[in-house]
Amino acid sequence: MAVKRSLWMFGLEADEPSYEARVAAAARLSERLGVELQAPRIPPVETLQLRKPRITPPEALAGFCRQDVRDRAYHSYGYDRVDHGVWGNYPNPPDVVAHPRSDEELEAILEWADNGGFYVIPFGGGSSVVGGVTPPDDLGPVVTVSLDAMDRVLEVDATSRAARIQAGVFGPHLEEQLRPLGFTLRHFPQSFAGSTLGGWIATRAGGHYATNHTHIDDFVESLRMLTPSGWLETRRIPASGAGPDPNRLAIGSEGVLGIISEAWMRIQLRPRFRASAAVTFPTWDGGWEATRRIAQAKLWPANLRLLDPELARSSAGTGSGAALLIIGFESGELSQRSNIADALSIARDAGGVVDDAEVRVEDGSERPTGRGGTIGAWREAFIPGASGGGLGGLAGLGVVAGTFETAVTWESWPELDDRVRSATHEALQVTCGGGSLNCRFTHVYPDGPAPYYTYVGARPQGMKAAEAHGAVKRAASDAILACGGTITHHHAVGRLHRPWYDQERPALFARVLRAAKSTLDPGGILNPGVLIDP
Amino acid sequence: MAVKRSLWMFGLEADEPSYEARVAAAARLSERLGVELQAPRIPPVETLQLRKPRITPPEALAGFCRQDVRDRAYHSYGYDRVDHGVWGNYPNPPDVVAHPRSDEELEAILEWADNGGFYVIPFGGGSSVVGGVTPPDDLGPVVTVSLDAMDRVLEVDATSRAARIQAGVFGPHLEEQLRPLGFTLRHFPQSFAGSTLGGWIATRAGGHYATNHTHIDDFVESLRMLTPSGWLETRRIPASGAGPDPNRLAIGSEGVLGIISEAWMRIQLRPRFRASAAVTFPTWDGGWEATRRIAQAKLWPANLRLLDPELARSSAGTGSGAALLIIGFESGELSQRSNIADALSIARDAGGVVDDAEVRVEDGSERPTGRGGTIGAWREAFIPGASGGGLGGLAGLGVVAGTFETAVTWESWPELDDRVRSATHEALQVTCGGGSLNCRFTHVYPDGPAPYYTYVGARPQGMKAAEAHGAVKRAASDAILACGGTITHHHAVGRLHRPWYDQERPALFARVLRAAKSTLDPGGILNPGVLIDP
Repeated sequence: MAVKRSLWMFGLEADEPSYEARVAAAARLSERLGVELQAPRIPPVETLQLRKPRITPPEALAGFCRQDVRDRAYHSYGYDRVDHGVWGNYPNPPDVVAHPRSDEELEAILEWADNGGFYVIPFGGGSSVVGGVTPPDDLGPVVTVSLDAMDRVLEVDATSRAARIQAGVFGPHLEEQLRPLGFTLRHFPQSFAGSTLGGWIATRAGGHYATNHTHIDDFVESLRMLTPSGWLETRRIPASGAGPDPNRLAIGSEGVLGIISEAWMRIQLRPRFRASAAVTFPTWDGGWEATRRIAQAKLWPANLRLLDPELARSSAGTGSGAALLIIGFESGELSQRSNIADALSIARDAGGVVDDAEVRVEDGSERPTGRGGTIGAWREAFIPGASGGGLGGLAGLGVVAGTFETAVTWESWPELDDRVRSATHEALQVTCGGGSLNCRFTHVYPDGPAPYYTYVGARPQGMKAAEAHGAVKRAASDAILACGGTITHHHAVGRLHRPWYDQERPALFARVLRAAKSTLDPGGILNPGVLIDP
Repeated sequence: MAVKRSLWMFGLEADEPSYEARVAAAARLSERLGVELQAPRIPPVETLQLRKPRITPPEALAGFCRQDVRDRAYHSYGYDRVDHGVWGNYPNPPDVVAHPRSDEELEAILEWADNGGFYVIPFGGGSSVVGGVTPPDDLGPVVTVSLDAMDRVLEVDATSRAARIQAGVFGPHLEEQLRPLGFTLRHFPQSFAGSTLGGWIATRAGGHYATNHTHIDDFVESLRMLTPSGWLETRRIPASGAGPDPNRLAIGSEGVLGIISEAWMRIQLRPRFRASAAVTFPTWDGGWEATRRIAQAKLWPANLRLLDPELARSSAGTGSGAALLIIGFESGELSQRSNIADALSIARDAGGVVDDAEVRVEDGSERPTGRGGTIGAWREAFIPGASGGGLGGLAGLGVVAGTFETAVTWESWPELDDRVRSATHEALQVTCGGGSLNCRFTHVYPDGPAPYYTYVGARPQGMKAAEAHGAVKRAASDAILACGGTITHHHAVGRLHRPWYDQERPALFARVLRAAKSTLDPGGILNPGVLIDP
């Protein structure tokens, strides 16, 4: 991979803002927030002093292992590089970063680590927001295994619409390889540009589809996972009733059971038919009530994103107090005219207001037409470019901005929303003297929504951003669990969500997971501290 | 339960044919097949001599335990009672049949068995066709735990469309309880009348929906399972990305890990809108090619059943050589007129012939109108009445008739169909001097079909039906595995499918399953021999 990813923001080095641009951003923000913000100078990689590697790979593995400062620094973090990289803060880097190019090299590195008792951290795109790839403190030697050299689409079965794909491929590169054949995986998490197929599977990523098959789980036909006890390879079948599904053991295992090397994935024909509309609702309650009815009618729109009034106003310019629902259908084969009409009929019945100029139907065009209006504004605000650039512009300024998400039944949703909002506002008050919070639904099910909250501290109080995040996160997570939500709908557990995952996960299931780990990873070397205790 | 289920056929005792009716059936069949068939007299329950119970439950449990001959005989088999009950063949009955009425009684019986080292076989409806509830030979004392006294819908969350339901409820009784509230689970396996919610979950039953959410797996929101190590209870959430899904450990565990006592299930509004049509294709290949295209267009019809020419002719009267595709849509909210038009457009493009008189659209009626024509004929032939009566009429006549099923990718499907057909015909030739075989798709996925085969021996050769079944089963199963299919799409593994399941299941996953079992069932008392070795 010739691509150089940034050490301190989510995106490419080539997209990093200059020091001058960051100073200007700090000045703008200082004025807006009424506090003095400084843009720190980011230490050049040449000046970084990392702990000396505690181990050295043998000659036979040296060809695909790296120990240089940049590679070790890069693999010290997931998305939290935004909080640390800007300070040159690398107290605990991996000792070796392996980039195996084949199953054989993958076997060799895992065997070496297992024999030596070194910890192994599987690394996809490094977009984890939950500490899923961060070597924990006080640990022995760590080998981070990046899959980035295993990035090919190996085989396409056009008849069954499935493809055999190596786990290390990043989103854009995967789509590039499928596009000439007329196919797409159509899995577009917000991290798309900086995350990989293997990472999506290991963390049960939530993708493009807002309804029906939302998680990557549903697109896995079969997979291969290397464990210290050998390969676990499932059979390629559309569906089965033969015992507990072995794929479901690997899906969501977050690197604690093995390293996923490839998968047969269900792929889609590239969409040529689209229909979309924006609906406004006088109130937030009216918006989610309509969303529930559309989800329960099982029209299965690809997009069904509801924005609360705060977010609708700030990102799409919707009028005060109104919630905004964006509905979208797509298909490779069939006009979606009737589906959007049905969805809008339900939305209108539920009190929604539809601007006819905002209803678009495209029948058979290869590329989406330019999209202005409300939906266009929203897309601009939310969909990062292919490089993922721009997401780290605030790094190091001390601004407290973060997200958390869950899923909950419709019955419990109103109370969860109330309590999460008051707990989060209270925590923001204490840590930042106030702040703002908005919510959207990223995914919606017949039995409940998956709400996604974004908060921004009003005035950073000199407290480190990570500490303020921690306070907000604790308050919100406690409220989520207390109201029947899950600690994560699609951000995974990692190390950050452990305290709440431990409450949510049935105690006996924890024991089963540990038994599975003892079987597949008897030395306990894989991703210690993630999901379960070592 | 006042209902008395038949000891020797699948259905109620009240629906058993008389001896005279069976003699007449034997005479008719003798003439048709050109062999001498006898209808044996079925020994009355009063004359049955069963092995004395080897254990007696203590006083405290006696109130919900039975040891009478009828109950022990009934719980000796699943669907294979059809092969044994008619001869009064009960060499290995359970010693105790417990009918716990509450979680407390369930705990008490499991604790007693675990302490005593007695084997426990969880029993739902007893519709297993794979020996899933049959005490194996040479085993110590066996306690069969029937859930039939735990058969209530406990709670309905109409907002989220979910219901908390006890595992022992039979299909019709479950629907009866949901109907007054306007809801339905809409899970209608062919065994519907004689199987239970807990059995469906434990065996990953395939239901009513031919596409999209086909297995019961997708309808489980959360569940409770009692294991010898305690309760495993999952959280009620619409979806989660928090680690491997704990529900998926219990779903398909076939009673080897615990006893499922209840589940929160996703329920549906009762359908009021329907659209259906029958399409004929000049050839079998043309039929499945069209079916593939409809499935891949993701219209998600509730029904998408393709009948091969043999079956189309015998069950629906379709002309020689033609395959028949039955397409059906349904909804509680929305007209399905546009969906059926889209599906028919694809079918016609693919060479299908649609009789306009066979296209029905019902917009908003509470009950389906009477259905004649091709689809009506097919329904008559396939859907057993609520009592499940009539399925055992051939029991004991020596007629060899059975079914097997799988799922396979579209790419591998043509070869699988060829090889399964030739292997099965060869086995029928050897065991029955010939026979017939037909195929239909019960469920269809974008990446492959779930074909279901039914065979009938031309002339039973005096060989016991079970032996002839074994020969056919072996031949067909070997072909299925060799061509990339799964040993079962929805009949489960039980004891019968073990040799092929052992080939299909990843070896490391078998080790994980055993580790899970050691954790949840350290005494190894639960359903020995099913899925994995004790």
